[in-house]
Amino acid sequence: MTETALNKTIANIGENDPVLDTEFAVEMVRQMCALDPYGTSDSWSAARILNPFVLAKEQKREIPVVGNPDDFVLSRVKVFYNAIAALIEKECGLMAVPTINLTYEGFGRALITVGKLVVMDRTLRDVHRFGFPTLSKMKDEADKILSVALEIVGEYPKAAGM
Amino acid sequence: MTETALNKTIANIGENDPVLDTEFAVEMVRQMCALDPYGTSDSWSAARILNPFVLAKEQKREIPVVGNPDDFVLSRVKVFYNAIAALIEKECGLMAVPTINLTYEGFGRALITVGKLVVMDRTLRDVHRFGFPTLSKMKDEADKILSVALEIVGEYPKAAGM
Repeated sequence: MTETALNKTIANIGENDPVLDTEFAVEMVRQMCALDPYGTSDSWSAARILNPFVLAKEQKREIPVVGNPDDFVLSRVKVFYNAIAALIEKECGLMAVPTINLTYEGFGRALITVGKLVVMDRTLRDVHRFGFPTLSKMKDEADKILSVALEIVGEYPKAAGM
Repeated sequence: MTETALNKTIANIGENDPVLDTEFAVEMVRQMCALDPYGTSDSWSAARILNPFVLAKEQKREIPVVGNPDDFVLSRVKVFYNAIAALIEKECGLMAVPTINLTYEGFGRALITVGKLVVMDRTLRDVHRFGFPTLSKMKDEADKILSVALEIVGEYPKAAGM
Protein backbone atom coordinates (compact mmCIF):
# COMPACT_ATOMS: atom_id res chain seq x y z
CA MET A 1 0.00 0.00 0.00
CA THR A 2 1.44 3.39 -0.87
CA GLU A 3 1.87 6.19 1.63
CA THR A 4 -1.02 8.18 0.23
CA ALA A 5 -3.33 5.20 0.09
CA LEU A 6 -2.55 4.41 3.71
CA ASN A 7 -3.13 8.02 4.59
CA LYS A 8 -6.46 8.33 2.89
CA THR A 9 -8.18 5.05 3.43
CA ILE A 10 -7.97 4.35 7.14
CA ALA A 11 -8.78 6.91 9.80
CA ASN A 12 -7.03 5.86 12.99
CA ILE A 13 -7.71 9.06 14.91
CA GLY A 14 -11.17 10.39 15.68
CA GLU A 15 -11.78 13.98 14.63
CA ASN A 16 -12.79 14.85 18.20
CA ASP A 17 -10.08 12.93 20.06
CA PRO A 18 -9.36 15.02 23.19
CA VAL A 19 -5.63 14.24 22.90
CA LEU A 20 -5.58 16.47 19.80
CA ASP A 21 -5.95 19.50 22.08
CA THR A 22 -2.89 18.70 24.19
CA GLU A 23 0.28 20.72 23.88
CA PHE A 24 2.09 17.69 22.48
CA ALA A 25 -0.38 17.09 19.65
CA VAL A 26 -0.44 20.79 18.78
CA GLU A 27 3.36 20.76 18.58
CA MET A 28 3.28 17.63 16.41
CA VAL A 29 0.88 19.30 13.97
CA ARG A 30 3.11 22.40 13.90
CA GLN A 31 6.15 20.25 13.13
CA MET A 32 4.30 18.36 10.40
CA CYS A 33 3.20 21.63 8.77
CA ALA A 34 6.81 22.85 8.87
CA LEU A 35 7.68 19.95 6.56
CA ASP A 36 4.96 20.83 4.10
CA PRO A 37 6.38 23.64 1.96
CA TYR A 38 3.49 23.65 -0.52
CA GLY A 39 0.81 23.84 2.14
CA THR A 40 -0.86 20.68 0.89
CA SER A 41 -2.19 19.96 4.35
CA ASP A 42 -3.27 23.51 5.20
CA SER A 43 -6.92 22.62 5.00
CA TRP A 44 -6.50 19.29 6.79
CA SER A 45 -7.75 18.62 10.30
CA ALA A 46 -5.26 17.81 13.05
CA ALA A 47 -6.60 14.26 13.09
CA ARG A 48 -5.83 13.83 9.41
CA ILE A 49 -2.35 15.33 9.72
CA LEU A 50 -1.40 13.05 12.60
CA ASN A 51 -3.16 10.02 11.16
CA PRO A 52 -0.01 8.34 9.73
CA PHE A 53 1.51 8.20 13.23
CA VAL A 54 -1.12 5.76 14.37
CA LEU A 55 -0.85 2.26 12.99
CA ALA A 56 -2.88 -0.72 14.03
CA LYS A 57 -1.02 -4.01 14.42
CA GLU A 58 -2.37 -5.32 11.12
CA GLN A 59 -1.32 -2.14 9.32
CA LYS A 60 2.20 -2.46 10.72
CA ARG A 61 2.42 -6.06 9.64
CA GLU A 62 1.67 -5.06 6.06
CA ILE A 63 4.75 -2.83 5.87
CA PRO A 64 7.85 -4.73 4.75
CA VAL A 65 11.03 -4.09 6.76
CA VAL A 66 13.50 -4.71 3.94
CA GLY A 67 15.71 -1.98 2.54
CA ASN A 68 15.87 1.53 3.87
CA PRO A 69 12.73 3.23 5.20
CA ASP A 70 11.30 5.87 2.89
CA ASP A 71 11.51 9.62 3.43
CA PHE A 72 7.92 9.89 4.65
CA VAL A 73 8.45 7.63 7.61
CA LEU A 74 11.84 9.22 8.35
CA SER A 75 10.28 12.65 8.48
CA ARG A 76 7.66 11.31 10.90
CA VAL A 77 10.36 9.93 13.18
CA LYS A 78 12.04 13.35 13.10
CA VAL A 79 8.75 15.14 13.76
CA PHE A 80 8.07 12.96 16.81
CA TYR A 81 11.45 13.63 18.42
CA ASN A 82 11.47 17.29 17.32
CA ALA A 83 8.15 17.79 19.08
CA ILE A 84 9.49 16.20 22.26
CA ALA A 85 12.60 18.37 22.07
CA ALA A 86 10.41 21.46 21.67
CA LEU A 87 8.46 20.50 24.80
CA ILE A 88 11.67 19.88 26.77
CA GLU A 89 12.87 23.30 25.67
CA LYS A 90 9.62 24.89 26.76
CA GLU A 91 9.75 23.22 30.16
CA CYS A 92 13.35 23.88 31.14
CA GLY A 93 14.11 26.98 29.08
CA LEU A 94 17.26 25.47 27.58
CA MET A 95 17.78 24.52 23.95
CA ALA A 96 17.11 20.84 23.30
CA VAL A 97 18.65 19.43 20.13
CA PRO A 98 17.29 16.23 18.57
CA THR A 99 19.62 14.07 16.48
CA ILE A 100 18.40 11.11 14.47
CA ASN A 101 21.14 8.85 13.23
CA LEU A 102 20.00 6.05 10.94
CA THR A 103 22.34 3.42 9.66
CA TYR A 104 20.76 0.88 7.35
CA GLU A 105 17.61 -1.15 7.07
CA GLY A 106 15.72 0.95 9.56
CA PHE A 107 18.16 0.72 12.45
CA GLY A 108 19.52 3.74 14.22
CA ARG A 109 19.68 5.94 17.23
CA ALA A 110 17.71 8.94 18.41
CA LEU A 111 19.31 11.42 20.78
CA ILE A 112 18.16 14.61 22.42
CA THR A 113 20.83 16.76 24.01
CA VAL A 114 20.48 19.75 26.32
CA GLY A 115 23.77 21.56 26.72
CA LYS A 116 26.34 18.86 27.44
CA LEU A 117 23.68 16.46 28.62
CA VAL A 118 22.09 13.56 26.78
CA VAL A 119 18.53 13.65 28.04
CA MET A 120 17.24 10.94 25.71
CA ASP A 121 19.06 8.11 23.99
CA ARG A 122 17.03 5.51 22.13
CA THR A 123 17.81 2.71 19.80
CA LEU A 124 15.58 2.70 16.73
CA ARG A 125 14.57 -0.57 15.12
CA ASP A 126 12.29 -1.33 12.18
CA VAL A 127 11.80 2.36 11.52
CA HIS A 128 9.72 1.37 8.46
CA ARG A 129 6.94 0.50 10.88
CA PHE A 130 7.26 3.60 13.06
CA GLY A 131 3.87 4.25 14.57
CA PHE A 132 1.81 3.91 17.71
CA PRO A 133 -1.29 1.80 18.43
CA THR A 134 -3.34 4.87 19.37
CA LEU A 135 -2.89 8.62 19.57
CA SER A 136 -3.04 8.51 23.34
CA LYS A 137 -0.31 5.83 23.45
CA MET A 138 1.87 8.14 21.38
CA LYS A 139 1.28 10.94 23.85
CA ASP A 140 2.07 8.61 26.78
CA GLU A 141 5.37 7.70 25.17
CA ALA A 142 6.24 11.36 24.61
CA ASP A 143 5.26 12.25 28.19
CA LYS A 144 7.48 9.47 29.51
CA ILE A 145 10.47 10.69 27.51
CA LEU A 146 9.76 14.28 28.55
CA SER A 147 9.59 13.51 32.26
CA VAL A 148 12.77 11.40 32.21
CA ALA A 149 14.54 14.18 30.29
CA LEU A 150 13.50 16.85 32.77
CA GLU A 151 14.59 14.57 35.61
CA ILE A 152 18.06 14.24 34.05
CA VAL A 153 18.29 18.01 33.59
CA GLY A 154 17.30 18.44 37.22
CA GLU A 155 19.97 15.98 38.29
CA TYR A 156 22.81 17.63 36.35
CA PRO A 157 21.72 21.25 35.94
CA LYS A 158 25.26 22.52 35.47
CA ALA A 159 26.04 20.12 32.61
CA ALA A 160 22.74 21.13 30.99
CA GLY A 161 23.91 24.73 31.04
CA MET A 162 21.62 26.09 33.75
CA MET B 1 39.83 13.40 -9.95
CA THR B 2 38.42 10.11 -8.72
CA GLU B 3 38.97 8.75 -5.23
CA THR B 4 41.45 6.14 -6.41
CA ALA B 5 43.37 8.54 -8.56
CA LEU B 6 43.68 10.92 -5.65
CA ASN B 7 44.76 8.04 -3.46
CA LYS B 8 47.42 6.75 -5.76
CA THR B 9 48.98 9.75 -7.34
CA ILE B 10 49.88 12.06 -4.50
CA ALA B 11 51.67 10.91 -1.37
CA ASN B 12 50.90 13.41 1.35
CA ILE B 13 52.38 11.39 4.18
CA GLY B 14 55.99 10.31 4.35
CA GLU B 15 56.54 6.58 4.90
CA ASN B 16 58.67 7.36 7.96
CA ASP B 17 56.54 10.10 9.49
CA PRO B 18 56.98 9.73 13.28
CA VAL B 19 53.30 10.57 13.84
CA LEU B 20 52.47 7.18 12.27
CA ASP B 21 53.75 5.50 15.44
CA THR B 22 51.45 7.40 17.79
CA GLU B 23 48.52 5.70 19.44
CA PHE B 24 46.13 7.89 17.45
CA ALA B 25 47.54 6.95 14.05
CA VAL B 26 47.62 3.27 14.98
CA GLU B 27 43.96 3.48 15.98
CA MET B 28 43.12 5.28 12.71
CA VAL B 29 44.76 2.49 10.71
CA ARG B 30 42.87 -0.10 12.73
CA GLN B 31 39.56 1.67 12.07
CA MET B 32 40.34 1.96 8.34
CA CYS B 33 41.12 -1.75 8.15
CA ALA B 34 37.84 -2.53 9.90
CA LEU B 35 36.06 -0.93 6.93
CA ASP B 36 37.93 -3.02 4.41
CA PRO B 37 36.14 -6.39 4.34
CA TYR B 38 38.12 -7.72 1.36
CA GLY B 39 41.49 -6.89 2.85
CA THR B 40 42.44 -4.77 -0.15
CA SER B 41 44.72 -2.66 2.01
CA ASP B 42 46.28 -5.51 3.99
CA SER B 43 49.61 -5.09 2.28
CA TRP B 44 49.52 -1.29 2.41
CA SER B 45 51.74 0.79 4.64
CA ALA B 46 50.17 2.96 7.35
CA ALA B 47 51.19 6.03 5.35
CA ARG B 48 49.28 4.80 2.32
CA ILE B 49 46.20 3.85 4.34
CA LEU B 50 46.01 7.26 6.02
CA ASN B 51 46.98 9.18 2.88
CA PRO B 52 43.43 10.24 1.91
CA PHE B 53 43.05 12.06 5.24
CA VAL B 54 45.72 14.55 4.27
CA LEU B 55 44.75 17.05 1.61
CA ALA B 56 46.77 20.03 0.51
CA LYS B 57 44.86 23.25 -0.08
CA GLU B 58 45.02 22.82 -3.84
CA GLN B 59 43.71 19.26 -3.58
CA LYS B 60 40.80 20.45 -1.46
CA ARG B 61 39.96 23.17 -3.93
CA GLU B 62 39.62 20.60 -6.71
CA ILE B 63 36.84 18.76 -4.90
CA PRO B 64 33.40 20.17 -5.74
CA VAL B 65 31.05 20.75 -2.78
CA VAL B 66 27.80 20.20 -4.65
CA GLY B 67 25.48 17.31 -3.90
CA ASN B 68 26.01 14.82 -1.15
CA PRO B 69 29.52 13.68 -0.24
CA ASP B 70 30.38 10.16 -1.41
CA ASP B 71 30.66 7.10 0.80
CA PHE B 72 34.45 7.15 0.83
CA VAL B 73 34.68 10.55 2.45
CA LEU B 74 31.82 9.72 4.83
CA SER B 75 33.62 6.62 6.01
CA ARG B 76 36.75 8.71 6.62
CA VAL B 77 34.79 11.17 8.74
CA LYS B 78 33.45 8.23 10.73
CA VAL B 79 36.90 6.68 11.09
CA PHE B 80 38.32 9.95 12.43
CA TYR B 81 35.68 10.34 15.14
CA ASN B 82 35.61 6.59 15.88
CA ALA B 83 39.34 6.70 16.54
CA ILE B 84 38.94 9.66 18.89
CA ALA B 85 36.09 7.89 20.69
CA ALA B 86 38.29 4.80 21.06
CA LEU B 87 41.02 6.92 22.63
CA ILE B 88 38.56 8.62 25.00
CA GLU B 89 37.35 5.18 26.01
CA LYS B 90 40.90 4.01 26.63
CA GLU B 91 41.70 7.06 28.74
CA CYS B 92 38.64 7.19 30.98
CA GLY B 93 37.52 3.55 30.92
CA LEU B 94 33.96 4.45 29.95
CA MET B 95 32.26 3.68 26.66
CA ALA B 96 32.40 6.60 24.22
CA VAL B 97 29.84 6.53 21.42
CA PRO B 98 30.39 8.54 18.24
CA THR B 99 27.37 9.69 16.25
CA ILE B 100 27.66 11.31 12.85
CA ASN B 101 24.51 12.97 11.65
CA LEU B 102 24.64 14.32 8.10
CA THR B 103 21.82 16.24 6.56
CA TYR B 104 22.41 17.33 2.97
CA GLU B 105 25.15 18.79 0.85
CA GLY B 106 27.88 17.92 3.30
CA PHE B 107 26.45 19.59 6.37
CA GLY B 108 25.95 17.83 9.64
CA ARG B 109 26.91 17.25 13.20
CA ALA B 110 29.38 14.97 14.93
CA LEU B 111 28.80 13.98 18.53
CA ILE B 112 30.65 11.80 21.00
CA THR B 113 28.78 10.83 24.14
CA VAL B 114 30.06 9.19 27.30
CA GLY B 115 27.20 8.02 29.49
CA LYS B 116 24.79 10.95 29.66
CA LEU B 117 27.50 13.42 28.73
CA VAL B 118 28.20 15.03 25.37
CA VAL B 119 31.98 15.24 25.36
CA MET B 120 32.26 16.48 21.78
CA ASP B 121 29.77 18.35 19.64
CA ARG B 122 30.90 19.65 16.27
CA THR B 123 29.21 21.15 13.29
CA LEU B 124 30.37 19.58 10.03
CA ARG B 125 30.58 21.68 6.91
CA ASP B 126 31.76 20.86 3.40
CA VAL B 127 32.30 17.27 4.35
CA HIS B 128 33.25 16.59 0.70
CA ARG B 129 36.58 18.23 1.46
CA PHE B 130 37.20 16.50 4.80
CA GLY B 131 40.93 16.35 5.30
CA PHE B 132 43.83 17.94 7.13
CA PRO B 133 46.81 19.90 5.82
CA THR B 134 49.30 17.46 7.34
CA LEU B 135 49.23 14.26 9.34
CA SER B 136 50.53 16.04 12.40
CA LYS B 137 47.77 18.68 12.13
CA MET B 138 45.25 15.85 12.12
CA LYS B 139 46.79 14.43 15.28
CA ASP B 140 46.77 17.90 16.91
CA GLU B 141 43.08 18.20 16.16
CA ALA B 142 42.36 14.79 17.64
CA ASP B 143 44.47 15.56 20.71
CA LYS B 144 42.58 18.79 21.25
CA ILE B 145 39.20 17.02 21.07
CA LEU B 146 40.50 14.25 23.34
CA SER B 147 41.75 16.61 26.04
CA VAL B 148 38.55 18.70 26.02
CA ALA B 149 36.50 15.50 26.22
CA LEU B 150 38.46 14.18 29.19
CA GLU B 151 38.13 17.56 30.87
CA ILE B 152 34.34 17.43 30.50
CA VAL B 153 34.27 13.89 31.90
CA GLY B 154 36.39 15.10 34.83
CA GLU B 155 33.99 17.95 35.42
CA TYR B 156 30.85 15.82 35.44
CA PRO B 157 32.02 12.35 36.41
CA LYS B 158 28.62 11.29 37.69
CA ALA B 159 26.81 12.16 34.45
CA ALA B 160 29.49 10.28 32.54
CA GLY B 161 28.69 7.20 34.61
CA MET B 162 31.81 7.05 36.75
